[in-house]
Amino acid sequence: MSFSKEQRQAVYDTIFARRDVRGEFLPDPIPDAVLSRLLLAAHHAPSVGFMQPWNFLIIRQPTVKQQVHQAFQKANDEAAQQFSGEQADRYRRLKLEGILEAPINLCMTCDRDRCGPVVLGRTHMPEMDLYSTVCAVQNLWLAARAEGVGVGWVSILDPAALKSILRITTANIVPVAYLCMGYVSHFHGEPELASKGWRQRLDPASLIYYDQWGQQESPHKLDEALGAQRRLLLL
Amino acid sequence: MSFSKEQRQAVYDTIFARRDVRGEFLPDPIPDAVLSRLLLAAHHAPSVGFMQPWNFLIIRQPTVKQQVHQAFQKANDEAAQQFSGEQADRYRRLKLEGILEAPINLCMTCDRDRCGPVVLGRTHMPEMDLYSTVCAVQNLWLAARAEGVGVGWVSILDPAALKSILRITTANIVPVAYLCMGYVSHFHGEPELASKGWRQRLDPASLIYYDQWGQQESPHKLDEALGAQRRLLLL
Repeated sequence: MSFSKEQRQAVYDTIFARRDVRGEFLPDPIPDAVLSRLLLAAHHAPSVGFMQPWNFLIIRQPTVKQQVHQAFQKANDEAAQQFSGEQADRYRRLKLEGILEAPINLCMTCDRDRCGPVVLGRTHMPEMDLYSTVCAVQNLWLAARAEGVGVGWVSILDPAALKSILRITTANIVPVAYLCMGYVSHFHGEPELASKGWRQRLDPASLIYYDQWGQQESPHKLDEALGAQRRLLLL
Repeated sequence: MSFSKEQRQAVYDTIFARRDVRGEFLPDPIPDAVLSRLLLAAHHAPSVGFMQPWNFLIIRQPTVKQQVHQAFQKANDEAAQQFSGEQADRYRRLKLEGILEAPINLCMTCDRDRCGPVVLGRTHMPEMDLYSTVCAVQNLWLAARAEGVGVGWVSILDPAALKSILRITTANIVPVAYLCMGYVSHFHGEPELASKGWRQRLDPASLIYYDQWGQQESPHKLDEALGAQRRLLLL
């Protein structure tokens, strides 16, 4: 299968228009067909040794969401204390989750024992199963954007507290991502942490090295092409 | 921005047609414009606290590739010893990388110190910066598929050996993904580990729980919708 220019552009548009959604969730339910497609997109992520280590815990019950929200508030209070002065004020003004508003919360977990102790491709990088699960998160996030469904990843949670709320009792199951999902009033044009002055997008050319770490010079230096593509893609 | 049915389908087609490529690389160079778009797709991944912790180390020099290939061979011999009997034979017959054939190797790293010791969203999950880098890998992988560029992730490498070859001397820089990239003769229709009998795709319905871990029953049970969407999407 090869892709037309228009199809290719649709993929880039999805990538560049994806946002971490915290505050714009609508109560409209996500139809089963749409939610199924999102889960299939996640399930077709790459995984080390074709391990497919993920599970999908779909949370709709308000009581469960409320417990997770309380765990967020506790963790967020602890996190806020890491900042001081004006930055602490700015931190406390940020809305960082939509746990209660989003019609669906989804916890994506990694079962580190899914294939037994030996997994093809994991001998030297045991964390590859966690990385596979993150690839599944990103597949779901992009498919959701194309469906008009917003996704927000809440990482301000104590993993042990989250496991307790979700009744995950064994050490091999790791909650990798806690996602809030729902249709939205709108998607922001820029990441909120940029538009709210927290941190700006870095110049991608400054992040590229050639053939060895720290080497910024090369006969194949990409700066010009990168600049041209950024302008074409309106980034 | 909202997406038409055709645009949405292009995103799904890309997700479902993406493969881990090991053996089909062509020597044709990747034009700078295409490579730039792939790096921009990666750079627009989500990142914790808008940290953007990634660097892109582009490797074209044959001497560097050869050293990495030697490191792969050493790691692969060690990994093969983990298997026994028929499985060990099957393991040794698998082609698991295209380091020397792929015109470009790309090491995506995570700088764990990019924003200093305190990062929004990372207090309770310090691994979030690594996960952000994996999101960037998956963005690049999908954009590459839409461009007709194959990508293979080589995880059979000792990270310390890889750091030494790439002259990464500080502990804060973690090589997250070593990718082989290039145009390909063709993409496989199924993951090779499935078609070669190593491991089959799991039934996604068996991986879904509702409201708490292990709970497979729900008034919102998705099995039927999931089956219908799988058939529609020809999965």
